[in-house]
Amino acid sequence: MTTKMAINAKDIFRNQHRLIRFIEQSIRLCSNQSLKTAQQQQQKASTPDFEITASVNTQYTHAPEPIKHDKDLGHMFKASQMAVRLATPQQLQPKPDNDEELGFGKLFTDHMLKIYYHKSLGGWQKPEITPLENLVMHPAAKVLHYAVELFEGMKAYRGVDGKIRIFRPDMNMNRMNLAAQRSGLPTFEGKEFVQCLSRLLSIDSEWVPHTEAASLYIRPTLIGIDPTLGVASSDSALLYSILSPVGSYFKTGSNGAVSLLADPSYTRAWPGGVGNRKMGSNYAPTINVQKEAAARGLQQVLWLYGEDHQLTEVGTMNIFMFYVNDQGEQELITPPLNGLILPGITRDSILAMTRQWGKFKVREATFTMPMVSELLNQGRLLELFGTGTACVVSPINRINYLGQDLYIPTMEQEKPVHELIRETLTDIQYGKVDHPWSVVID
Amino acid sequence: MTTKMAINAKDIFRNQHRLIRFIEQSIRLCSNQSLKTAQQQQQKASTPDFEITASVNTQYTHAPEPIKHDKDLGHMFKASQMAVRLATPQQLQPKPDNDEELGFGKLFTDHMLKIYYHKSLGGWQKPEITPLENLVMHPAAKVLHYAVELFEGMKAYRGVDGKIRIFRPDMNMNRMNLAAQRSGLPTFEGKEFVQCLSRLLSIDSEWVPHTEAASLYIRPTLIGIDPTLGVASSDSALLYSILSPVGSYFKTGSNGAVSLLADPSYTRAWPGGVGNRKMGSNYAPTINVQKEAAARGLQQVLWLYGEDHQLTEVGTMNIFMFYVNDQGEQELITPPLNGLILPGITRDSILAMTRQWGKFKVREATFTMPMVSELLNQGRLLELFGTGTACVVSPINRINYLGQDLYIPTMEQEKPVHELIRETLTDIQYGKVDHPWSVVID
Repeated sequence: MTTKMAINAKDIFRNQHRLIRFIEQSIRLCSNQSLKTAQQQQQKASTPDFEITASVNTQYTHAPEPIKHDKDLGHMFKASQMAVRLATPQQLQPKPDNDEELGFGKLFTDHMLKIYYHKSLGGWQKPEITPLENLVMHPAAKVLHYAVELFEGMKAYRGVDGKIRIFRPDMNMNRMNLAAQRSGLPTFEGKEFVQCLSRLLSIDSEWVPHTEAASLYIRPTLIGIDPTLGVASSDSALLYSILSPVGSYFKTGSNGAVSLLADPSYTRAWPGGVGNRKMGSNYAPTINVQKEAAARGLQQVLWLYGEDHQLTEVGTMNIFMFYVNDQGEQELITPPLNGLILPGITRDSILAMTRQWGKFKVREATFTMPMVSELLNQGRLLELFGTGTACVVSPINRINYLGQDLYIPTMEQEKPVHELIRETLTDIQYGKVDHPWSVVID
Repeated sequence: MTTKMAINAKDIFRNQHRLIRFIEQSIRLCSNQSLKTAQQQQQKASTPDFEITASVNTQYTHAPEPIKHDKDLGHMFKASQMAVRLATPQQLQPKPDNDEELGFGKLFTDHMLKIYYHKSLGGWQKPEITPLENLVMHPAAKVLHYAVELFEGMKAYRGVDGKIRIFRPDMNMNRMNLAAQRSGLPTFEGKEFVQCLSRLLSIDSEWVPHTEAASLYIRPTLIGIDPTLGVASSDSALLYSILSPVGSYFKTGSNGAVSLLADPSYTRAWPGGVGNRKMGSNYAPTINVQKEAAARGLQQVLWLYGEDHQLTEVGTMNIFMFYVNDQGEQELITPPLNGLILPGITRDSILAMTRQWGKFKVREATFTMPMVSELLNQGRLLELFGTGTACVVSPINRINYLGQDLYIPTMEQEKPVHELIRETLTDIQYGKVDHPWSVVID
């Protein structure tokens, strides 16, 4: 970094932002030791009722099946073949002034990762890290016509020890490969791709925010780039990743809770479709419905399914309900992975974690809007919240359903479960607690 | 053209293909008069039983509603503002040798049309025609992540009089705008866009094949190019069109008929979704199912819906059945526009046309696989065929349904209705019959 800053006056001017960051960082490093001690003390004080240890079973509640690659896929890529072309000092972008007002996915780091696939050239090509740059593609590229595209959402967190961690990346890789198979796109070795991502993260490590109120969002993307108009598998593809510093979702909303539009006339996914795959095609049809929700002063869409109005997802999140069941027990419930629901990694982690706690019942089962209504009437609905990588946990305080407002007492609980879940997960993600789910990037 | 070819020896070499085409064309022009007379005589001889005249009611069976533009859309584009940058002689591509072996969407013409939309710049920008060139876009462009994209399929036909015609373009424009609204993309004035397309067609007119066995496929496309990762409306978009000379679909298949996989475990569209909009998101999920059909030796997918296994679409086409109804009458039936079905322009034209013929009953109604099975058993199913811009009419001779092969006698009829429909429509499209549906490009 020092060599980069020493070139000439113009560069120094251009990179003054980096210089400020460098100085800030030095100060931070100096005070790190005392900060760490303080945090450890604070941590001890706020230890939750439910004990979380490194012994959490890393068997997934729904263990992903190993990927079966197409027979004629050709050769795979290896992280060890990586070529790196660094940005010139002139290409480096200033980092944001205020990590807490970043928003979501508006700003990108200096570098990106690209791996091309060309069947005609024998399969996957060598991975390359390049400066962040525009993609160049033929106007007939399949991605632009038939939505031959899929993506993942991951995050890199700067821990209290200064180390950078990612969360259960094997889960993302598995889901990405399943989506590739469903889209007629080439599959790949997840471990190799995670190694490539780690290299990218190391190069742009200064972009990982130095605060727990923010993180570096990782957006792996796979697109079909064959320049032919047949609705068919793509013999050329680009697997790439960009990085974007993002703020905390909790800073938005008056009391941090969201209001929802639940309109049964719109459906997100259906049996025999691809609602359980993170494909681009699941998102475009939701945009106008989200606009409608916003026009009615509501923040997200609650996606219902079927004549009984089952709750499936909220916005782009999984949904959880904490309530008192018919046996008078506290129970955490979320819809099962029945093909209509994205197999969320946060969802899976919450299920594994709360099952281990053993403090309340945990169940995967369908629940409906009439049930929600009835539980509310009886004072048995305690909390309703969305979960996902972007927000971790997003509490819900109101649902507009069939023209009526249902008020949910999620924010009125004394010791809310969603808060405990959020704290426990972020403690793991920011390295306050050692945990096998958190993978340190070297 | 002569000036383009007169530059130097290298250019002449490069453009020898154009020179051959020029000579061929001159010969064709000379013999045009006698050809025309011969065709007129032939036309008289093959006049169908059912009279088709220019009096066909151009009121659509489902008249499209006028587009309501967003209030804050900004200014619209005008065809009169068009900027044209022609390809240099070196950029011109050789035209295909054999129009009849073109396949579909593999080859593109020399020029393309582009119209950008930027909300921040006040709305739609000036239309431009440029050489066919790669698109350059940010790796975060919404089209690459959330399938913020839609398209149309149109064709330019070279008539027997040498004039170039397009077919009911107002219908495509309306459908495109409806898809834009559903996708959070900006709408536009269809008439202006058709004028822009006409200009593009004039410039690349030599690419419109000189045969009735081929045509020039027009692919208008609208994509969201905002470089931000929020799942939201796109404030920047690109409306573009490329052109591709395509062969006839009828040359494929042993006897010209297709076999279908009907697997009720896959669903194309569902109530509350976007199956009635030509959005990219409807296509990616079909690719793997189409692969499965191919692996079983079947050519297309028959998309079923619901527990009663309703027939909805076939491949990317609408479906029609010609059969003997319970009253012993011949009847042509196609599923209604209930939200699960793309409002096909060929579908609409066939309905209008056959209703005017008055020779058999015509009805829009749901029909199911058990009905198809029963009609076959009773010898009352006469024909089953797909319809669409790419193929016009595609007869079906076999359906693999729940592991059983159902043989459809579509190709065994003496005077098949699907043939009559195809001839009538292509006669209009290739200008053998004057008809208001056919729009001549000047």
